[in-house]
Parts: sequence; structure tokens; C-alpha cells
Amino acid sequence: MTTAVNSNDSLARLAAVIESRKASNGGDPDASYVARLLHKGPDGFLKKIGEEATEVVMAAKDADHGGDKTKIVYEVADLWFHCMIALAHYDLTPADVVAELERRAGTSGIEEKALRKAIAREANNS
Amino acid sequence: MTTAVNSNDSLARLAAVIESRKASNGGDPDASYVARLLHKGPDGFLKKIGEEATEVVMAAKDADHGGDKTKIVYEVADLWFHCMIALAHYDLTPADVVAELERRAGTSGIEEKALRKAIAREANNS
Amino acid sequence: MTTAVNSNDSLARLAAVIESRKASNGGDPDASYVARLLHKGPDGFLKKIGEEATEVVMAAKDADHGGDKTKIVYEVADLWFHCMIALAHYDLTPADVVAELERRAGTSGIEEKALRKAIAREANNS
Amino acid sequence: MTTAVNSNDSLARLAAVIESRKASNGGDPDASYVARLLHKGPDGFLKKIGEEATEVVMAAKDADHGGDKTKIVYEVADLWFHCMIALAHYDLTPADVVAELERRAGTSGIEEKALRKAIAREANNS
Repeated sequence: MTTAVNSNDSLARLAAVIESRKASNGGDPDASYVARLLHKGPDGFLKKIGEEATEVVMAAKDADHGGDKTKIVYEVADLWFHCMIALAHYDLTPADVVAELERRAGTSGIEEKALRKAIAREANNS
Repeated sequence: MTTAVNSNDSLARLAAVIESRKASNGGDPDASYVARLLHKGPDGFLKKIGEEATEVVMAAKDADHGGDKTKIVYEVADLWFHCMIALAHYDLTPADVVAELERRAGTSGIEEKALRKAIAREANNS
Repeated sequence: MTTAVNSNDSLARLAAVIESRKASNGGDPDASYVARLLHKGPDGFLKKIGEEATEVVMAAKDADHGGDKTKIVYEVADLWFHCMIALAHYDLTPADVVAELERRAGTSGIEEKALRKAIAREANNS
Repeated sequence: MTTAVNSNDSLARLAAVIESRKASNGGDPDASYVARLLHKGPDGFLKKIGEEATEVVMAAKDADHGGDKTKIVYEVADLWFHCMIALAHYDLTPADVVAELERRAGTSGIEEKALRKAIAREANNS
């Protein structure tokens, strides 16, 4: 009866679409953008990850100065989408990533360790 | 019955933890890495997005040459985690991003448009 | 009587070419790639900086695994070239950048400060 | 009389300093930031290239919105500096990069080819 977005399910569904675009699953590079990126090999989608990360940063800086915040959503979606293509290429899934994020959120020691590092870095940058 | 935030929704749960780290929700920059990043303002977490995207690319290139693929999972988790901190700062959520991804997966015309662009780019790069 | 490349002169010469591509200097967006990038505004060339930095990293990782090192040269040239377009847009020059690099090389205290920070960071990352 | 390394050549001078920091030239990781980065291997300085490229983009976006333009100079200097450390690691020099830039500026066909690609891309993005 749930209606709205369950991220786990949504990401899994999108990952299944990407998986179906692999050549071994019948994906056609002349009929699908994802099939084309997967067919051409890593450099294409890895370059997009660098490019889309930059676009996230630009959209965020624009928002800092009064720009439309919804553009950040589009750019993060572009970034995560190309990450998911990379994951598929290496036979990994967004569920692997989410499990790793869960592990961190649930492991109380992790944030504290990151915090100690951040404080030390700042002390040395001043 | 539930709507956007579902008990199975890992990203929503992590987003709630991040949200709780905002100063306005009692987050303490001296006790939490996330609170600290949020407190210091955008440049800190935006810089991390660029850095973590580069680490995803490096881990992927290493995997191409026989390296451990699970490192890609850690690096994508780092990248998405810092994206989620950015989203929280701008009062956006991973559910917004997932909804955008859902929209694309469900809109048959989108991949075709991306494909036409990619084919044209390649034609002009040869 | 010098023959080979003097970087200062070469960069200045290239900067002059880029400067001549500004609309205010008669640059034609339909006849020049640089004029076109300058005409379209910052997001285009800034996105390229993120993309080209990623390509430098990929070429370097390939070289680590036996790939052709000259590809690194091409990618760094692409990166610096787009940086120079950005500099021109903001009425800055590569000479400004080189002067800043000179200042660092000649200021003995700078590397030591960077070193202290790096050592502290590593201590906290272990 | 001089050839590639000219006394007026700032980048060559800085490259020589970086070269002297290699372990094989007596560079000491405990006394020099550059020696330390070179000693630790590629991932450290490659990650910095991604990070510094992001900082260039952030400084430029701030300048677009009224921020101090000289910050762009510092960030480009940081980016080029870490590129030079990478070049040194792979036994390449900034003179190689500048020669490649010279070649492009002097080869009239190159900008036109880049232009044709850019126009085609834009046509397909609209």
C-alpha cells in the first residue's frame, strides 16, 4: 500500500533496466544510450562522472547565489545515474552502495573517526 | 499507509540522520563530522564531491587493471554520502533525486534523446 | 638565439590568441572554438575543466598500468588550455598564474607549511 | 645557445625544483611536501588534481557572483602545480605540455575541428 518512492526499490528497478542494456543481455548500442556507454567501455562513463560532479558543484554554487535549487536535484541524478552505469559494468549494484551507507550510519564509531580527522586537518590548515 | 519515508528505505533513514546534524536540529560541530561539514558551509562538502568523484574514477581504473572491485563500492558510497550532505544543506532529499531517476527510467523518450546526442557527438569526434 | 620552448613566451602567445577571440576583440563564435566557449559563458568552460581533470587522472592511471605516457601530456594540455580560456574570461592571464607559482617556489616557508599539514593529515588518516 | 630550459622560464625552474625532490635525487619525504607526494605514489597527487579542479570551478563561480577574482589565480596555480608533480612522476615536463599547446595554437586546422564538434554538440543538445 505504500505509494511514494522507496529508494531501495527504485534504485533496484533502475539498476535492472541498466543491466538489461548490457550486450550480453541483448542491449543494442544503436538503440539505447546506456547500451552505448556500456559498449564503449569505462572511459566514457568515468569521464561523465567527473563532468557531472562538476555540474553538481556549479548548480550548488548558483543556488548559493540565489539560483534554482531544483537544478541540484537534476545534476545529482545525472551523477548517480552515471555511477550506476559504472556499477553495472563492474557487476556491482546500487544495493551494494546502499548497504555500505547503511553500515556507516549504523556504526557509531565511524562518524567520530571522520570527525577526529576533520578537526586535525582544520587545526593544521589554520 | 506510509508515504515517502518507508521503513525499508535506507537512503531516507540516512538522510534523517544527516538532517538531525543541522545546527537548527541540535547538531554539534564538535561531536559530529556531518554537523561540522554542514556548519562550515558549502565549499567544504562541494570540494569533497569533486575529490570523491575522482576517487571513484581511480578505483574503477584500478579495477580495469585487476584491482579489487569492492573499492569502487566504498568510493561511490563516499561520493553519494557527500552528495546527501549537500542535498540536506539545500533542504533537498535523496527521495527528490530518486524520483528524478524514476521519472527518467519511466519516460521512454529520454534515453532515445540522450542516444541521438551521443551518436551525433561520436560522429563529430571521429 | 634560444630555439626551443620558453614557457612564459609560449603561454603569453597562446593567451594573446585566446584574448583575440573575445567578442569585444572581434572573435566570431561561428568561426572559432574559443570564441564560442567565451561567448556561451562560464558554465561551458568550467565543465570542461572538471572533465579534462578527470581525463588527466584516467591517462595517468593507464600509464601506471603500462599505457602510453604521452597521452598524459595531451590531457594536461587540454586541461591547461581550458584553464586559460577561463583566465581570459575573468581578465586574468597565465602570467598571473606563473607569477604565483614563482612566488611559491621562491618562498622557502611555503613547502614546509604544506608538509606539516600533510604529515598531520596522514597521522589522522591512519 | 640555451635550448629547452631558458633562464626566463619559470615553469622549467619550478619543474627542476620538483625533480630535485624525487627520492632518486635525494628528496626527503620528511622535509618536503613535494618529496612526500612523489614518495607516496600517484593516487595522492591525482586525487589533488580532481580536488583542485573543483576549487578552480568554485572560485570562478564565486567570481561570477561578485567574489574576488584573484582567488581564481591561486586555485589555477594549485591545479597546475599538482599537474607538474604528476608530470615529474611520469618523467614528463611542463615543456612537453607547452610544446603541445604551441602545436595547437600554430596548427590552424585544430580550432576549426574543435569548432565543428562543438556546433554539432549544441545542435544535438537543443
